[in-house]
Amino acid sequence: MDPTEREVACFEAGIKFGTLYHQFAGTPVSPESAASLERAMEAAVENQPHCTAVDVAILVDELDTTHDYTELTGRYMEVHMRIDYGETVVRTEMRMEDGYPMMRVVDVHEE
Amino acid sequence: MDPTEREVACFEAGIKFGTLYHQFAGTPVSPESAASLERAMEAAVENQPHCTAVDVAILVDELDTTHDYTELTGRYMEVHMRIDYGETVVRTEMRMEDGYPMMRVVDVHEE
Amino acid sequence: MDPTEREVACFEAGIKFGTLYHQFAGTPVSPESAASLERAMEAAVENQPHCTAVDVAILVDELDTTHDYTELTGRYMEVHMRIDYGETVVRTEMRMEDGYPMMRVVDVHEE
Amino acid sequence: MDPTEREVACFEAGIKFGTLYHQFAGTPVSPESAASLERAMEAAVENQPHCTAVDVAILVDELDTTHDYTELTGRYMEVHMRIDYGETVVRTEMRMEDGYPMMRVVDVHEE
Repeated sequence: MDPTEREVACFEAGIKFGTLYHQFAGTPVSPESAASLERAMEAAVENQPHCTAVDVAILVDELDTTHDYTELTGRYMEVHMRIDYGETVVRTEMRMEDGYPMMRVVDVHEE
Repeated sequence: MDPTEREVACFEAGIKFGTLYHQFAGTPVSPESAASLERAMEAAVENQPHCTAVDVAILVDELDTTHDYTELTGRYMEVHMRIDYGETVVRTEMRMEDGYPMMRVVDVHEE
Repeated sequence: MDPTEREVACFEAGIKFGTLYHQFAGTPVSPESAASLERAMEAAVENQPHCTAVDVAILVDELDTTHDYTELTGRYMEVHMRIDYGETVVRTEMRMEDGYPMMRVVDVHEE
Repeated sequence: MDPTEREVACFEAGIKFGTLYHQFAGTPVSPESAASLERAMEAAVENQPHCTAVDVAILVDELDTTHDYTELTGRYMEVHMRIDYGETVVRTEMRMEDGYPMMRVVDVHEE
């Protein structure tokens, strides 16, 4: 059957997470460049439809600096997003759990 | 409030689309290399949790071959996916509409 | 035979261009987000070894805004880089030529 | 001064390595999907100008399968390429050294 508005809103939320992760995974990142990458990731994904707010925190203290820089992966970031689709608001987050970058719907409600 | 099983299933479906698109957009592609890229995209995304089936069709006749190859974008592919999460099945597709690669939930149901 | 210092410097310069292009091609970009993406691209690639300076100009007036944003490709950017390897300095650029994003070594010399 | 043919050949070789690495880093990969990804990476990069041969070996025994699949990074692959530019042949390779995916020109000669 057709999806409900809430289901479409959650689908849209998922698209944004897959976009953010796979567009930017592998980017060379260092403590010095982390802030500019956070801003660019947020602004890039906020361009997508229904994406109201994106907050990316690169975990600078966790970065492996053995070779001065490393490549961005899920272990080095925490992300929060808000999606507005119709009357529905979806809040999502990504954080590491058991060595896996877990993406999760935190809350869905109508406003 | 917490998402329902169907809403989580739709979120998972969205993640897979964002992954597929932004991991592979920009890949050099030609009529000769298209088939291997289709297979790799399908197998890569099917690795992700709850992703039962991915079908990627690169539109070989549409590829710009002025310079022998071009870069993969949404205009050159159609994608269908099936997500199984708990008892819920989500079917999704991507195709061009008005010059935009539209990703859509086609069907959600419990089995 | 083994490469000369100048040849290795040119190899290093090429790596940076391939990195910059294929890491960021496909990123959602709009006139509003272009500046943050320019900064992030510059800072990310400058992390790589021997990469002294990167200048990215996203051609904001060229961006297709039919759907508010578009995906970054070579047609929307011009890039200049400087590589320092040993005593050798390599200057490179990327710009569109005949619809192809041409990457070129502009100058190689010892300092 | 202008680059020599050999220097341009090395620049072209570098572009291919940056392309291969940053296009595909982050791709979900498992022992089952590795072969299709190897083929797609080879065929994609061989599309690029002057790139005669690419050989990608994903180190299947090294893949972290704690969560069934992992994301492709330099630690999981070895790559060899041949570039032909004018009369010049460049051979390159990538392999891990001290935890860093080192890309190197192995040989440059005229044929």
